[in-house]
Amino acid sequence: MIKITLPDNSVKEFSGPVTGMEIAQSISPRLAKDVLSVSVNGEIWDLTRKITDDATVKLHTWNDREGKEAFWHSSAHLMAEAIEYFYPGTKFGIGPTVDVGFYYDIALPDNQQLTEKDLQKIEKKMLELARQKNDIVRQEISKKDAMEMFTKKHDELKQELIGELEDGTITLYNQGNFTDLCRGPHLPNTGYIKAIKLTSIAGAYWRGNEKNQMLTRVYGVTFPKQKMLEEYLVMLEEAKKRDHRKLGKEMELFAFSDAVGQGLPLWLPKGTQLRMQLEDFLKKVQRMYGYDQVITPHIGDVKLYKTSGHYQKYGKDSFQPITTPAEGEEYMLKPMNCPHHCEIYKVKPHSYKDLPIRMAEFGTVYRYEQSGELHGLTRVRGFTQDDAHIFCRPDQLKDEFKKVIDIIFIIFKALSFDNYTAQISLRDPKNPDKYIGTAENWDKAERAIIEACEEKGLNTITETGEAAFYGPKLDFMIKDALGRSWQLGTIQVDYNLPERFELEYIGADDKRHRPVMIHRAPFGSMERFVAVLIEHTAGKFPLWLTPDQAVVLPISEKYNEYAEKVSNLLNNSDIRTLVDDRNEKIGRKIRDNELKRIPYLLIVGEKEEESETVSVRRQGEGDLGVKQVGEFADLVAAEVREQLSGLYN
Amino acid sequence: MIKITLPDNSVKEFSGPVTGMEIAQSISPRLAKDVLSVSVNGEIWDLTRKITDDATVKLHTWNDREGKEAFWHSSAHLMAEAIEYFYPGTKFGIGPTVDVGFYYDIALPDNQQLTEKDLQKIEKKMLELARQKNDIVRQEISKKDAMEMFTKKHDELKQELIGELEDGTITLYNQGNFTDLCRGPHLPNTGYIKAIKLTSIAGAYWRGNEKNQMLTRVYGVTFPKQKMLEEYLVMLEEAKKRDHRKLGKEMELFAFSDAVGQGLPLWLPKGTQLRMQLEDFLKKVQRMYGYDQVITPHIGDVKLYKTSGHYQKYGKDSFQPITTPAEGEEYMLKPMNCPHHCEIYKVKPHSYKDLPIRMAEFGTVYRYEQSGELHGLTRVRGFTQDDAHIFCRPDQLKDEFKKVIDIIFIIFKALSFDNYTAQISLRDPKNPDKYIGTAENWDKAERAIIEACEEKGLNTITETGEAAFYGPKLDFMIKDALGRSWQLGTIQVDYNLPERFELEYIGADDKRHRPVMIHRAPFGSMERFVAVLIEHTAGKFPLWLTPDQAVVLPISEKYNEYAEKVSNLLNNSDIRTLVDDRNEKIGRKIRDNELKRIPYLLIVGEKEEESETVSVRRQGEGDLGVKQVGEFADLVAAEVREQLSGLYN
Repeated sequence: MIKITLPDNSVKEFSGPVTGMEIAQSISPRLAKDVLSVSVNGEIWDLTRKITDDATVKLHTWNDREGKEAFWHSSAHLMAEAIEYFYPGTKFGIGPTVDVGFYYDIALPDNQQLTEKDLQKIEKKMLELARQKNDIVRQEISKKDAMEMFTKKHDELKQELIGELEDGTITLYNQGNFTDLCRGPHLPNTGYIKAIKLTSIAGAYWRGNEKNQMLTRVYGVTFPKQKMLEEYLVMLEEAKKRDHRKLGKEMELFAFSDAVGQGLPLWLPKGTQLRMQLEDFLKKVQRMYGYDQVITPHIGDVKLYKTSGHYQKYGKDSFQPITTPAEGEEYMLKPMNCPHHCEIYKVKPHSYKDLPIRMAEFGTVYRYEQSGELHGLTRVRGFTQDDAHIFCRPDQLKDEFKKVIDIIFIIFKALSFDNYTAQISLRDPKNPDKYIGTAENWDKAERAIIEACEEKGLNTITETGEAAFYGPKLDFMIKDALGRSWQLGTIQVDYNLPERFELEYIGADDKRHRPVMIHRAPFGSMERFVAVLIEHTAGKFPLWLTPDQAVVLPISEKYNEYAEKVSNLLNNSDIRTLVDDRNEKIGRKIRDNELKRIPYLLIVGEKEEESETVSVRRQGEGDLGVKQVGEFADLVAAEVREQLSGLYN
Repeated sequence: MIKITLPDNSVKEFSGPVTGMEIAQSISPRLAKDVLSVSVNGEIWDLTRKITDDATVKLHTWNDREGKEAFWHSSAHLMAEAIEYFYPGTKFGIGPTVDVGFYYDIALPDNQQLTEKDLQKIEKKMLELARQKNDIVRQEISKKDAMEMFTKKHDELKQELIGELEDGTITLYNQGNFTDLCRGPHLPNTGYIKAIKLTSIAGAYWRGNEKNQMLTRVYGVTFPKQKMLEEYLVMLEEAKKRDHRKLGKEMELFAFSDAVGQGLPLWLPKGTQLRMQLEDFLKKVQRMYGYDQVITPHIGDVKLYKTSGHYQKYGKDSFQPITTPAEGEEYMLKPMNCPHHCEIYKVKPHSYKDLPIRMAEFGTVYRYEQSGELHGLTRVRGFTQDDAHIFCRPDQLKDEFKKVIDIIFIIFKALSFDNYTAQISLRDPKNPDKYIGTAENWDKAERAIIEACEEKGLNTITETGEAAFYGPKLDFMIKDALGRSWQLGTIQVDYNLPERFELEYIGADDKRHRPVMIHRAPFGSMERFVAVLIEHTAGKFPLWLTPDQAVVLPISEKYNEYAEKVSNLLNNSDIRTLVDDRNEKIGRKIRDNELKRIPYLLIVGEKEEESETVSVRRQGEGDLGVKQVGEFADLVAAEVREQLSGLYN
């Protein structure tokens, strides 16, 4: 008798050893068709592997990361099989899954290089092998046998990998004529893979070390349905067009300079305008919610970060400490703003009546990332958090949580992020030793979060055991216009820093108490948020936010003066307006300024100058007709009001 | 025959060797009375020293730094004489002049310590010695003789100093019964010193090194008239009350934390509010004048600062470079924003039509200062410049200069700095090799500055030879409410960085040209400027700028709700308003809030609640009577408009 406990805590009994696939079949034929891998007591297994003891089991489909990983992992092997077919003697490095898809680092015999055409050939072969529905079979062998096998194949890359494994059983996976060293898990057979696209070829040093040989990295992606691949390729094409690095350059929002340093963004005038608009918006909302802005330095004594624990976390692997020439001090670029805010809290004593204290800062922090990890504005070495720390009494937690949720909703609305989910991360009640803070406080905090979400009518999923060691949290994930998910807006309870910094307030009972801290940053960082916003809107920012709201286009140089006059009038009405007085044809000017994604184009010529009007074109809508300048200003003001209506009063 | 050339280029002839005093006498008896020291071919001499060859001469009075220095230097000797009188065997370290006054580092015999009372005794003795009008006599002796003399006196401090001098003639100065090792120059006799105050005693390590013995440092100040001393003491008392460190604490504007690090200010909520108000004000003015805001990181690759030359200037003696753990990079905390702005200029090519480009950033920079040099917000290790760089064509220099002068005037007006002077610093035409850039460009730039000042009706003094090696400049000095001078608002032309960064634009002639840069920061730094502003206004900031413009004071808890209502109404009208709902007597609340320097106190009780009014008290003016809430809001708005009227429209 084997008892299988499922995620809903129901128990299924089987008369003997059972596979994940058999469990799925016992639940429904549909699930048996969709299931891709299985977690057995938290470890991910092949569907065909026998479970011989009682176990807690979770079945994974395409909707789970674990399902996709098995799928793409098997796809990497399939690609390797096809490559070996065409290029016998190829040496295979590592072949992991990535965010979407997989790659394999390989060394073709005689230093051959692959071309786009070769990829098509390989794709075709992969499809052929997939249709053969070859079983993918797990095999356990000794380290010695494995070494012998790959020595025979002259695959020095695999030999190096095997050499580093611990002694004991090693697993191989076989399919068709191909065998690979692999921990698994894998699909039951290659037939699951219905749609294949090899997306690109790149060079990659063996094991990421530039002293090693350069390998060929082949990227690919596969799907269980042809339609899914087609949709993905369309999305990919659209994502390429919206890539914030491309648009950021075209729209002159930001730039990088090797002379300044990698991953250190330079915000150009238009990007700065955009960012300041976002910051001013959030400052205004935060003022409404009783936040105080502060400003703190970008460095701090290493001792400060030893107190906070950040030195232990970031010190060794991040930017190294800064010493002073004479006094033997050691400073650190700040990786977090919290320690500085704790020091501000400590500037004067506090009574329970002073709380909550809500301390906000657009604080620029620096964390080292390897240059290979850097990516546009989403992965940088210096970024500005829209940070705030709320110091409150335990009984104020729920209210404060609700207020932070309000602020996050205001932002989502103002920026049209209509599609979002929220996740509550609670502690694992079975592992109380993992957590700092009393059980009583944790209960209170978890209840506060759950109730706050309920009272705000938020749909949430709850993950037990996902809390940080210092407190439970609430995360928001938004889906952008291409359906991609981004994590924004974490609200984190913290019992740790108040303890480490010995923060106190005097209670109504005249005794000393520890406040609770809430960390929150709705945008996350200005850099990453602007990147998401660019890709979500394809650079067509909401009117209230966009750097240039209107551009006046004189149809010839004769009307430049009138164009300037219109522009001044509008700027005085706080409508951010430019003039394009280049000596170009009007058609060219319209095209160029539409490319710059300026919402309103105002064309002026003789007729307009005489009647003190402008001919209005709206980006994406076309001609809106001739309007008085004042009338146009009212139109813009109304549109902005509409976009921000009900957000703050 | 000896020819003496005076500063106005007139030449006086004397039949033989002549002293500075004799030259003064030949000009006017008044000057002979006022003169304190003399520059002979650029070297400062005693008035009684014979000039034996033709020379260029400048006479210094109390109005010149050089005059004051001779005066205070002789005063230090006078103090030493008085101390030696009471404490024979005292060893004398160094006794230099400071900004106002002088000090002497001494070691009293048997480790005796001085008290306040001792200072009075010494002061009295100094006055007595001064009244004796003892001649101060310069004497040249050999190093060997000098060493013998101070060895006999058992003064090891002086022996150490003498030991480090080059071989050759050493000068001593004698007066009464006292002789000191000294380069001079000095007053003719002690009788010039009419008023004396020894201000404080401090400990100081010999030669500033904490491994050496601790000496007693006695500070003093002297004047040629008793009345000047009295005025100075009144000013000192007032300055103490206005000390920005004291007010900054009382008003909760900023704080320092040893845990974060010395000289690294934490801007508290009220101070941040004040600073952001200043920044927003300047941003608005700069937008009017066509500036673009940018944001750049706080670090940069060391190579960037080698290109700019800042590494050579700041590298060794400042915060040490930051290395990265894996990639062997070296970064520096940025000591200046200019290199980053040059890199932004280089992001894209420029045509002559694009210029001027005016790039502004509130850029926080970090420069190491020894902890002993730190002082409140005026001398810090991290500060935010209201920096901007104008990249322009040579023919645009004058116009750009005029526009910067406009901005500086707007700031001076908005903050009531009515008393200012301006200095133009030009190159020394006799030393063309000292300067970078062509003579033609220098001529153009100097003419541009001079004409810009003339056209703006600015009273200027011109100093030849005071220009930086990379360009001429214009400096503004303001006098604060206590008559103290502060340098604010340098406008600096720069030919150097465009050269080092190889900045270019394509001219109308289709050829490459170098732009000129202008550096300017009207506030200098937010830290120093706020310090000056606190001391200038004694914390009573102009209404438009002050963090809290009004506070509502309910006369008892019964009216707290109405007070909240009033506060919300005013905040919605953009009047920054607080409520003081503490359970305190109204008299106490008024006193406390006046101490906080909040301009308007609004007292509310039954009468006010019924009639929807407030009783208005204006800081420094007293009771303004009962007003409708809307009426009060209009009053504040009108006052703010008045303060900023004509500044920008």
